[in-house]
Amino acid sequence: MTTPFFAAVAARQAQTNSLLCIGLDTDIQKVPACMQHMAAPLLAFNKAIIDATADLACCYKPQIAHYASQGAEAQLEATIAYLHELQMPVLLDAKRGDIGSTAEHYAREAFERYGADAVTINPYMGQDSLQPYLDYQDKGVIILCRTSNPGGADIQNLVLENGQRVYEHVAEQAAGAWNTYGNIGLVTGATQPAELARIREITGDMPFLVPGVGAQGGDVGALMAAGQGGMLIINSSRAIIYASKDDDFASAARQAAMRTVAEINRYKTR
Amino acid sequence: MTTPFFAAVAARQAQTNSLLCIGLDTDIQKVPACMQHMAAPLLAFNKAIIDATADLACCYKPQIAHYASQGAEAQLEATIAYLHELQMPVLLDAKRGDIGSTAEHYAREAFERYGADAVTINPYMGQDSLQPYLDYQDKGVIILCRTSNPGGADIQNLVLENGQRVYEHVAEQAAGAWNTYGNIGLVTGATQPAELARIREITGDMPFLVPGVGAQGGDVGALMAAGQGGMLIINSSRAIIYASKDDDFASAARQAAMRTVAEINRYKTR
Repeated sequence: MTTPFFAAVAARQAQTNSLLCIGLDTDIQKVPACMQHMAAPLLAFNKAIIDATADLACCYKPQIAHYASQGAEAQLEATIAYLHELQMPVLLDAKRGDIGSTAEHYAREAFERYGADAVTINPYMGQDSLQPYLDYQDKGVIILCRTSNPGGADIQNLVLENGQRVYEHVAEQAAGAWNTYGNIGLVTGATQPAELARIREITGDMPFLVPGVGAQGGDVGALMAAGQGGMLIINSSRAIIYASKDDDFASAARQAAMRTVAEINRYKTR
Repeated sequence: MTTPFFAAVAARQAQTNSLLCIGLDTDIQKVPACMQHMAAPLLAFNKAIIDATADLACCYKPQIAHYASQGAEAQLEATIAYLHELQMPVLLDAKRGDIGSTAEHYAREAFERYGADAVTINPYMGQDSLQPYLDYQDKGVIILCRTSNPGGADIQNLVLENGQRVYEHVAEQAAGAWNTYGNIGLVTGATQPAELARIREITGDMPFLVPGVGAQGGDVGALMAAGQGGMLIINSSRAIIYASKDDDFASAARQAAMRTVAEINRYKTR
């Protein structure tokens, strides 16, 4: 059985002709001045972005830190509920990682409290720290493999005694021993296309969440070539939602999303 | 300058003759039946535990997932405020890890929203994911190095081409390039004393947060021998706070804390 999250994303990718995931990294300091003093500014901003871009996105990815830093959990809950009213798959970007008894609580936070359809998690603490998420067999579990940030290389690119790099080992485990229920995807940054290609080679047709286009500068052509052979969920956050910092932010976000989708589709091979 | 968090913990360790950190992994399903239907059961439970154990602890470590899974952020805030009324150092166990722009929000969550004096973080995404926490120079930043759970070995014990293991590399970076402000500590599990000794060797007198005694079964004598030479903050959570599941939970927690402190002090060499 295909995991419902990945099936829903695939259906939307076909329907909208878009691989774009829009990241809702909604920062109170970057919301237009006219919204700053609303009762629920992050929610109001998100709804405006979603209304302007929903036909261009295969899913949305709210990033939880931006809400937690403000004590705005209720606005995150309401954003996810709004997305679900629109039948939109929701990936909660949380990157948690802890021992099993604690991971159960994080999994409950993501999947039960917020009702997310998928979540990002961190593999540094190993299999028993991942299992409580994986046990939600109808949810997508997206494990950090090779991240798009400059420091991504610090640990992930260390070379092991067998010649493999740490991220290759993570990819191998994710495609093998860890993937009992077939609900794993991987975070593979757009900023390192050669490594993305290597992860594709290791994991077959595993779904990839690809951050790093837009504000982080990843090359769309290179990532599309490197990632072919399995589902790509290509995320852009700040380059879309902050395309304008003025009152026209929603229409500017729509324009930025259209440009990004067009850029991606220029390199589509199927 | 010694980081205020570590200085405060050192002062309390001397004053109370205790290296014990008590973990507030307060699970709504494990709170005594008589408290389940209170308006703020996690807070009421925590206050009872703190009142019964404060003279036996050098600091407390609330674990955020247990509150987040219940939408109980306000009870976490109130718990930390209560600890601060008692002049107690507070370490927030969050194990976050994300790119710099997001890490800034997580750091704000821990240090500004909750007012924690220290936080745990995950190194898998490298230096730029750690920097926003480190930049709070008066806060303690406790980086996962070798964790106490069974899966801790999966990534952390991989052997690199130079013969080092991943956790040794993390220790080396933490004691070197990453530690510009001297505010780093490391998580080094009690369940692997030989590796704890190796991390002590690499990092000199760096403070260690040592989980894994109590419910996880770490050997106190072995960890005390392995960790000598620098500050040890020895954490026990479930073995103390759930020592009894009945109405006598607070006095049972006190007894368990006293036994743990006595066990630790049996092996103290200074």
